Amino acid sequence: MSSKTVSIQTLRRLPLYLHWLRSVRDALPGISATMLADALGLNDVQVRKDLGSVSGSGRPKKGYVTEELIADLEAYLGCDSHSPAVLIGAGNLGRALLSYDGFSDYGLEIVAAFDASPSVVGTTAGGKTVLPMEKLGEVCRSRSVRLGIITVPAAGAQNACDTLVEHGVTAIWNFAPTTLKVPHGVLVENENLASSLAVLSKHLIDGGA
Amino acid sequence: MSSKTVSIQTLRRLPLYLHWLRSVRDALPGISATMLADALGLNDVQVRKDLGSVSGSGRPKKGYVTEELIADLEAYLGCDSHSPAVLIGAGNLGRALLSYDGFSDYGLEIVAAFDASPSVVGTTAGGKTVLPMEKLGEVCRSRSVRLGIITVPAAGAQNACDTLVEHGVTAIWNFAPTTLKVPHGVLVENENLASSLAVLSKHLIDGGA
Repeated sequence: MSSKTVSIQTLRRLPLYLHWLRSVRDALPGISATMLADALGLNDVQVRKDLGSVSGSGRPKKGYVTEELIADLEAYLGCDSHSPAVLIGAGNLGRALLSYDGFSDYGLEIVAAFDASPSVVGTTAGGKTVLPMEKLGEVCRSRSVRLGIITVPAAGAQNACDTLVEHGVTAIWNFAPTTLKVPHGVLVENENLASSLAVLSKHLIDGGA
Repeated sequence: MSSKTVSIQTLRRLPLYLHWLRSVRDALPGISATMLADALGLNDVQVRKDLGSVSGSGRPKKGYVTEELIADLEAYLGCDSHSPAVLIGAGNLGRALLSYDGFSDYGLEIVAAFDASPSVVGTTAGGKTVLPMEKLGEVCRSRSVRLGIITVPAAGAQNACDTLVEHGVTAIWNFAPTTLKVPHGVLVENENLASSLAVLSKHLIDGGA
Protein backbone atom coordinates (compact mmCIF):
# COMPACT_ATOMS: atom_id res chain seq x y z
CA MET A 1 0.00 0.00 0.00
CA SER A 2 2.91 2.30 0.60
CA SER A 3 3.18 3.50 -2.96
CA LYS A 4 -0.18 5.31 -2.85
CA THR A 5 -0.15 9.06 -2.78
CA VAL A 6 -2.16 10.83 -0.12
CA SER A 7 -2.68 14.53 0.51
CA ILE A 8 -0.47 16.27 3.01
CA GLN A 9 -3.53 16.87 5.20
CA THR A 10 -4.21 13.12 5.29
CA LEU A 11 -0.55 12.39 5.93
CA ARG A 12 -0.60 14.71 8.95
CA ARG A 13 -3.60 12.89 10.43
CA LEU A 14 -2.18 9.38 10.04
CA PRO A 15 0.12 9.59 13.10
CA LEU A 16 -2.89 10.59 15.22
CA TYR A 17 -4.78 7.51 14.07
CA LEU A 18 -1.75 5.31 14.69
CA HIS A 19 -1.18 6.77 18.15
CA TRP A 20 -4.76 6.14 19.21
CA LEU A 21 -4.88 2.64 17.71
CA ARG A 22 -1.73 1.67 19.56
CA SER A 23 -3.33 2.87 22.78
CA VAL A 24 -6.40 0.63 22.34
CA ARG A 25 -4.84 -2.39 20.59
CA ASP A 26 -5.21 -4.63 23.65
CA ALA A 27 -8.77 -3.59 24.41
CA LEU A 28 -10.25 -3.43 20.91
CA PRO A 29 -9.44 -6.24 18.43
CA GLY A 30 -11.59 -4.56 15.77
CA ILE A 31 -12.37 -0.93 15.07
CA SER A 32 -14.35 1.14 12.58
CA ALA A 33 -13.65 4.51 11.01
CA THR A 34 -16.57 5.87 13.00
CA MET A 35 -15.08 4.75 16.32
CA LEU A 36 -11.76 6.33 15.39
CA ALA A 37 -13.49 9.53 14.26
CA ASP A 38 -15.47 9.74 17.51
CA ALA A 39 -12.41 9.14 19.65
CA LEU A 40 -10.43 11.87 17.92
CA GLY A 41 -13.25 14.31 17.34
CA LEU A 42 -12.88 14.16 13.57
CA ASN A 43 -15.35 13.81 10.71
CA ASP A 44 -16.04 10.13 10.05
CA VAL A 45 -16.29 10.47 6.27
CA GLN A 46 -12.83 12.00 6.29
CA VAL A 47 -11.40 9.30 8.55
CA ARG A 48 -12.92 6.56 6.38
CA LYS A 49 -11.34 8.11 3.29
CA ASP A 50 -7.98 8.56 5.00
CA LEU A 51 -7.86 4.94 6.14
CA GLY A 52 -9.00 3.66 2.76
CA SER A 53 -6.13 5.47 1.10
CA VAL A 54 -3.46 3.65 3.11
CA SER A 55 -5.05 0.32 3.97
CA GLY A 56 -6.94 -2.20 1.91
CA SER A 57 -7.79 -4.33 4.92
CA GLY A 58 -11.11 -2.69 5.87
CA ARG A 59 -14.34 -4.59 5.22
CA PRO A 60 -17.76 -2.99 4.70
CA LYS A 61 -19.84 -2.97 7.91
CA LYS A 62 -17.08 -4.88 9.72
CA GLY A 63 -14.37 -2.27 9.79
CA TYR A 64 -10.76 -3.09 10.45
CA VAL A 65 -8.84 -5.67 12.42
CA THR A 66 -6.94 -3.29 14.72
CA GLU A 67 -3.57 -5.01 14.35
CA GLU A 68 -3.85 -5.07 10.57
CA LEU A 69 -4.65 -1.38 10.43
CA ILE A 70 -1.76 -0.58 12.77
CA ALA A 71 0.57 -2.62 10.54
CA ASP A 72 -0.66 -0.83 7.41
CA LEU A 73 -0.23 2.60 8.99
CA GLU A 74 3.22 1.69 10.30
CA ALA A 75 4.27 0.46 6.89
CA TYR A 76 2.91 3.57 5.18
CA LEU A 77 4.55 5.94 7.63
CA GLY A 78 7.83 4.05 7.53
CA CYS A 79 7.85 3.41 11.27
CA ASP A 80 10.17 0.49 10.76
CA SER A 81 12.45 2.44 8.46
CA HIS A 82 14.74 3.79 11.19
CA SER A 83 15.66 7.13 9.65
CA PRO A 84 18.87 8.27 11.31
CA ALA A 85 18.83 12.00 12.02
CA VAL A 86 21.26 14.60 13.30
CA LEU A 87 20.35 17.65 15.34
CA ILE A 88 22.12 21.01 15.25
CA GLY A 89 21.71 23.31 18.25
CA ALA A 90 21.77 21.74 21.70
CA GLY A 91 19.99 24.53 23.60
CA ASN A 92 16.81 23.99 25.62
CA LEU A 93 14.65 22.92 22.72
CA GLY A 94 17.35 20.77 21.16
CA ARG A 95 17.95 19.03 24.47
CA ALA A 96 14.24 18.40 24.90
CA LEU A 97 14.06 16.76 21.49
CA LEU A 98 17.15 14.66 22.29
CA SER A 99 15.52 13.49 25.50
CA TYR A 100 12.09 12.83 23.97
CA ASP A 101 11.53 9.12 23.66
CA GLY A 102 8.47 9.22 21.42
CA PHE A 103 10.21 9.67 18.06
CA SER A 104 11.37 6.06 17.80
CA ASP A 105 7.69 5.06 17.49
CA TYR A 106 7.76 6.86 14.16
CA GLY A 107 11.06 5.47 12.92
CA LEU A 108 13.22 8.45 13.87
CA GLU A 109 16.49 8.03 15.69
CA ILE A 110 18.59 11.10 16.50
CA VAL A 111 22.05 9.57 16.20
CA ALA A 112 24.06 12.67 17.10
CA ALA A 113 23.76 16.29 18.21
CA PHE A 114 26.03 19.15 17.23
CA ASP A 115 26.61 22.66 18.48
CA ALA A 116 28.87 25.51 17.42
CA SER A 117 29.43 26.69 20.99
CA PRO A 118 32.51 25.23 22.73
CA SER A 119 30.72 25.53 26.08
CA VAL A 120 27.98 23.16 24.93
CA VAL A 121 30.18 20.64 23.08
CA GLY A 122 30.96 17.71 25.34
CA THR A 123 27.81 18.05 27.46
CA THR A 124 25.25 15.26 27.26
CA ALA A 125 21.52 15.22 26.60
CA GLY A 126 19.26 12.23 26.14
CA GLY A 127 22.31 10.02 26.69
CA LYS A 128 24.18 11.58 23.77
CA THR A 129 27.32 13.69 23.87
CA VAL A 130 27.08 16.95 21.94
CA LEU A 131 29.73 17.01 19.19
CA PRO A 132 31.52 19.94 17.53
CA MET A 133 30.28 21.02 14.08
CA GLU A 134 33.49 19.73 12.45
CA LYS A 135 32.31 16.17 13.10
CA LEU A 136 29.02 16.61 11.22
CA GLY A 137 30.25 15.45 7.82
CA GLU A 138 31.83 12.32 9.23
CA VAL A 139 28.67 11.30 11.12
CA CYS A 140 26.39 12.02 8.14
CA ARG A 141 28.58 9.86 5.91
CA SER A 142 29.10 6.96 8.28
CA ARG A 143 25.43 6.76 9.34
CA SER A 144 23.91 7.65 5.95
CA VAL A 145 21.97 10.51 7.53
CA ARG A 146 19.36 12.17 5.33
CA LEU A 147 17.29 13.94 7.99
CA GLY A 148 18.46 17.01 9.90
CA ILE A 149 16.84 18.87 12.78
CA ILE A 150 17.63 22.56 13.27
CA THR A 151 17.18 24.02 16.75
CA VAL A 152 19.61 26.94 16.57
CA PRO A 153 18.58 30.62 16.86
CA ALA A 154 17.18 32.18 13.67
CA ALA A 155 20.40 33.97 12.81
CA GLY A 156 22.33 30.69 12.49
CA ALA A 157 19.64 28.58 10.86
CA GLN A 158 20.49 29.11 7.18
CA ASN A 159 24.11 28.30 7.88
CA ALA A 160 23.13 25.10 9.72
CA CYS A 161 20.79 24.23 6.85
CA ASP A 162 23.48 24.76 4.20
CA THR A 163 25.88 22.54 6.16
CA LEU A 164 23.30 19.77 6.40
CA VAL A 165 22.46 19.93 2.70
CA GLU A 166 26.17 19.92 1.85
CA HIS A 167 26.49 16.64 3.74
CA GLY A 168 23.63 14.92 1.93
CA VAL A 169 20.61 15.72 4.09
CA THR A 170 17.39 15.92 2.02
CA ALA A 171 14.74 16.45 4.71
CA ILE A 172 15.00 19.24 7.27
CA TRP A 173 12.91 19.80 10.37
CA ASN A 174 13.29 23.49 11.14
CA PHE A 175 12.44 24.82 14.60
CA ALA A 176 14.17 28.18 14.07
CA PRO A 177 11.76 31.09 13.53
CA THR A 178 12.85 31.83 9.99
CA THR A 179 12.41 30.50 6.48
CA LEU A 180 15.20 28.49 4.87
CA LYS A 181 16.39 28.46 1.29
CA VAL A 182 17.14 24.97 0.01
CA PRO A 183 17.92 23.40 -3.36
CA HIS A 184 15.21 21.57 -5.31
CA GLY A 185 14.54 18.14 -3.85
CA VAL A 186 15.19 19.12 -0.24
CA LEU A 187 12.08 19.29 1.92
CA VAL A 188 11.80 21.70 4.84
CA GLU A 189 9.12 21.18 7.48
CA ASN A 190 8.79 24.31 9.61
CA GLU A 191 7.79 23.96 13.23
CA ASN A 192 7.19 27.61 13.96
CA LEU A 193 6.23 28.06 17.58
CA ALA A 194 5.92 31.85 17.22
CA SER A 195 3.35 31.40 14.44
CA SER A 196 1.20 29.15 16.61
CA LEU A 197 1.50 31.61 19.43
CA ALA A 198 0.37 34.42 17.13
CA VAL A 199 -2.81 32.51 16.30
CA LEU A 200 -3.57 31.92 19.97
CA SER A 201 -2.76 35.47 21.05
CA LYS A 202 -4.96 36.91 18.34
CA HIS A 203 -7.84 34.76 19.54
CA LEU A 204 -7.41 36.18 23.04
CA ILE A 205 -7.00 39.78 21.85
CA ASP A 206 -10.15 39.48 19.75
CA GLY A 207 -11.95 38.38 22.88
CA GLY A 208 -12.46 34.74 21.89
CA ALA A 209 -14.57 33.19 24.58
CA MET B 1 -4.94 48.79 12.59
CA SER B 2 -5.42 45.95 14.99
CA SER B 3 -9.12 45.53 14.26
CA LYS B 4 -8.51 44.30 10.71
CA THR B 5 -9.10 40.67 9.95
CA VAL B 6 -6.36 38.73 8.22
CA SER B 7 -6.27 35.13 7.04
CA ILE B 8 -4.73 32.53 9.30
CA GLN B 9 -1.97 32.02 6.71
CA THR B 10 -1.08 35.71 6.91
CA LEU B 11 -1.26 35.63 10.69
CA ARG B 12 1.23 32.75 10.77
CA ARG B 13 3.70 34.70 8.62
CA LEU B 14 3.57 37.92 10.67
CA PRO B 15 5.88 36.65 13.47
CA LEU B 16 8.48 35.74 10.82
CA TYR B 17 8.39 39.29 9.47
CA LEU B 18 8.60 40.74 12.95
CA HIS B 19 11.50 38.48 13.92
CA TRP B 20 13.51 39.47 10.85
CA LEU B 21 12.71 43.20 11.18
CA ARG B 22 13.85 43.19 14.80
CA SER B 23 17.13 41.60 13.69
CA VAL B 24 17.84 44.38 11.15
CA ARG B 25 16.31 47.41 12.93
CA ASP B 26 19.69 48.97 13.70
CA ALA B 27 21.13 48.41 10.25
CA LEU B 28 18.14 49.27 8.06
CA PRO B 29 16.05 52.36 8.92
CA GLY B 30 13.78 51.70 5.97
CA ILE B 31 12.66 48.48 4.28
CA SER B 32 10.46 47.38 1.41
CA ALA B 33 8.20 44.37 1.02
CA THR B 34 10.60 43.12 -1.66
CA MET B 35 13.57 43.21 0.71
CA LEU B 36 11.59 41.35 3.32
CA ALA B 37 10.42 38.80 0.75
CA ASP B 38 13.96 38.24 -0.50
CA ALA B 39 15.35 37.81 3.01
CA LEU B 40 12.73 35.23 3.94
CA GLY B 41 12.46 33.48 0.59
CA LEU B 42 8.80 34.40 0.18
CA ASN B 43 6.77 35.79 -2.70
CA ASP B 44 6.94 39.59 -2.69
CA VAL B 45 3.34 40.12 -3.80
CA GLN B 46 2.22 38.04 -0.85
CA VAL B 47 4.48 39.91 1.58
CA ARG B 48 3.26 43.28 0.27
CA LYS B 49 -0.34 42.20 0.76
CA ASP B 50 0.36 40.81 4.25
CA LEU B 51 2.04 44.02 5.39
CA GLY B 52 -0.68 46.17 3.89
CA SER B 53 -3.29 44.31 5.88
CA VAL B 54 -1.73 45.15 9.24
CA SER B 55 0.05 48.44 8.64
CA GLY B 56 -1.01 51.66 6.95
CA SER B 57 2.43 53.17 7.25
CA GLY B 58 3.90 51.99 3.95
CA ARG B 59 4.39 54.51 1.14
CA PRO B 60 4.47 53.68 -2.59
CA LYS B 61 8.03 53.32 -3.91
CA LYS B 62 9.40 54.27 -0.49
CA GLY B 63 8.38 51.28 1.54
CA TYR B 64 8.23 51.30 5.31
CA VAL B 65 10.08 53.01 8.12
CA THR B 66 11.40 49.90 9.89
CA GLU B 67 10.49 51.06 13.41
CA GLU B 68 6.95 51.98 12.35
CA LEU B 69 6.40 48.60 10.75
CA ILE B 70 7.77 46.83 13.82
CA ALA B 71 5.41 48.86 16.01
CA ASP B 72 2.42 48.04 13.79
CA LEU B 73 3.25 44.31 13.79
CA GLU B 74 3.78 44.29 17.55
CA ALA B 75 0.47 46.06 18.09
CA TYR B 76 -1.34 43.69 15.75
CA LEU B 77 0.17 40.58 17.32
CA GLY B 78 -0.42 41.86 20.84
CA CYS B 79 3.26 41.63 21.79
CA ASP B 80 2.70 44.15 24.55
CA SER B 81 -0.42 42.38 25.78
CA HIS B 82 1.35 40.10 28.28
CA SER B 83 -0.90 37.08 28.05
CA PRO B 84 -0.32 35.06 31.20
CA ALA B 85 -0.29 31.32 30.49
CA VAL B 86 -0.13 28.11 32.50
CA LEU B 87 1.54 24.90 31.40
CA ILE B 88 0.42 21.39 32.32
CA GLY B 89 2.97 18.59 32.07
CA ALA B 90 6.52 19.32 33.21
CA GLY B 91 8.30 16.55 31.31
CA ASN B 92 11.13 17.17 28.84
CA LEU B 93 9.10 19.20 26.40
CA GLY B 94 7.29 21.16 29.11
CA ARG B 95 10.57 21.99 30.79
CA ALA B 96 12.03 23.14 27.47
CA LEU B 97 9.12 25.50 26.93
CA LEU B 98 9.45 26.80 30.50
CA SER B 99 13.14 27.50 29.90
CA TYR B 100 12.66 29.06 26.48
CA ASP B 101 13.13 32.81 26.69
CA GLY B 102 11.77 33.73 23.27
CA PHE B 103 8.05 33.73 24.12
CA SER B 104 8.13 37.05 25.94
CA ASP B 105 8.94 38.72 22.61
CA TYR B 106 5.43 37.72 21.56
CA GLY B 107 3.64 38.73 24.74
CA LEU B 108 3.50 35.29 26.35
CA GLU B 109 4.49 34.72 29.94
CA ILE B 110 4.20 31.24 31.42
CA VAL B 111 3.29 32.16 34.98
CA ALA B 112 3.12 28.65 36.41
CA ALA B 113 3.64 24.99 35.57
CA PHE B 114 1.64 22.05 36.89
CA ASP B 115 2.10 18.31 36.94
CA ALA B 116 0.02 15.42 38.22
CA SER B 117 3.07 13.41 39.28
CA PRO B 118 4.20 13.90 42.89
CA SER B 119 7.79 13.18 41.84
CA VAL B 120 7.78 16.19 39.51
CA VAL B 121 5.90 18.62 41.76
CA GLY B 122 8.36 20.82 43.62
CA THR B 123 11.12 20.57 41.02
CA THR B 124 12.05 23.74 39.16
CA ALA B 125 12.36 24.57 35.45
CA GLY B 126 13.01 27.95 33.89
CA GLY B 127 13.14 29.41 37.38
CA LYS B 128 9.62 28.23 38.20
CA THR B 129 8.57 25.63 40.74
CA VAL B 130 6.24 22.94 39.38
CA LEU B 131 2.93 23.03 41.29
CA PRO B 132 0.38 20.28 42.00
CA MET B 133 -2.78 20.22 39.86
CA GLU B 134 -4.90 21.26 42.84
CA LYS B 135 -3.37 24.74 42.64
CA LEU B 136 -4.40 25.29 39.02
CA GLY B 137 -7.76 26.94 39.71
CA GLU B 138 -6.28 29.36 42.22
CA VAL B 139 -3.51 30.48 39.83
CA CYS B 140 -5.89 30.83 36.86
CA ARG B 141 -8.20 33.01 38.95
CA SER B 142 -5.58 35.20 40.58
CA ARG B 143 -3.60 35.78 37.37
CA SER B 144 -6.60 35.93 34.99
CA VAL B 145 -5.11 33.18 32.86
CA ARG B 146 -6.82 32.52 29.54
CA LEU B 147 -4.07 30.60 27.74
CA GLY B 148 -3.07 27.03 28.58
CA ILE B 149 -0.23 24.88 27.25
CA ILE B 150 -0.59 21.11 27.29
CA THR B 151 2.59 19.01 27.29
CA VAL B 152 1.29 15.83 28.92
CA PRO B 153 1.20 12.41 27.20
CA ALA B 154 -1.74 11.86 24.84
CA ALA B 155 -3.69 9.77 27.34
CA GLY B 156 -3.93 12.63 29.82
CA ALA B 157 -4.43 15.48 27.38
CA GLN B 158 -8.25 15.64 27.29
CA ASN B 159 -8.36 15.65 31.06
CA ALA B 160 -5.82 18.47 31.23
CA CYS B 161 -7.80 20.35 28.59
CA ASP B 162 -11.09 19.97 30.47
CA THR B 163 -9.47 21.25 33.65
CA LEU B 164 -8.10 24.31 31.84
CA VAL B 165 -11.45 25.11 30.24
CA GLU B 166 -13.18 24.67 33.58
CA HIS B 167 -10.91 27.35 35.01
CA GLY B 168 -11.62 29.89 32.28
CA VAL B 169 -8.93 29.17 29.68
CA THR B 170 -10.11 30.00 26.14
CA ALA B 171 -6.97 29.34 24.07
CA ILE B 172 -5.08 26.06 24.25
CA TRP B 173 -1.69 25.21 22.78
CA ASN B 174 -1.68 21.43 22.51
CA PHE B 175 1.60 19.53 22.15
CA ALA B 176 0.06 16.12 22.95
CA PRO B 177 -0.34 13.86 19.90
CA THR B 178 -4.11 13.73 20.04
CA THR B 179 -7.12 15.86 19.17
CA LEU B 180 -9.02 17.66 21.92
CA LYS B 181 -12.73 18.28 22.29
CA VAL B 182 -13.52 21.78 23.49
CA PRO B 183 -16.66 23.90 23.85
CA HIS B 184 -17.53 26.55 21.26
CA GLY B 185 -15.37 29.65 21.69
CA VAL B 186 -12.28 27.80 22.87
CA LEU B 187 -9.45 27.69 20.32
CA VAL B 188 -7.01 24.77 20.15
CA GLU B 189 -3.74 25.16 18.27
CA ASN B 190 -2.16 21.75 17.74
CA GLU B 191 1.60 21.45 17.63
CA ASN B 192 1.83 17.91 16.42
CA LEU B 193 5.44 16.84 16.18
CA ALA B 194 4.52 13.35 14.98
CA SER B 195 2.60 14.82 12.04
CA SER B 196 5.59 16.87 10.95
CA LEU B 197 7.77 13.85 11.30
CA ALA B 198 5.39 11.84 9.11
CA VAL B 199 5.74 14.40 6.33
CA LEU B 200 9.53 14.29 6.52
CA SER B 201 9.74 10.51 6.74
CA LYS B 202 7.46 10.10 3.75
CA HIS B 203 9.70 12.41 1.74
CA LEU B 204 12.68 10.19 2.58
CA ILE B 205 10.82 6.93 1.92
CA ASP B 206 9.66 8.23 -1.44
CA GLY B 207 13.28 8.88 -2.27
CA GLY B 208 13.14 12.66 -2.16
CA ALA B 209 16.52 13.89 -3.25
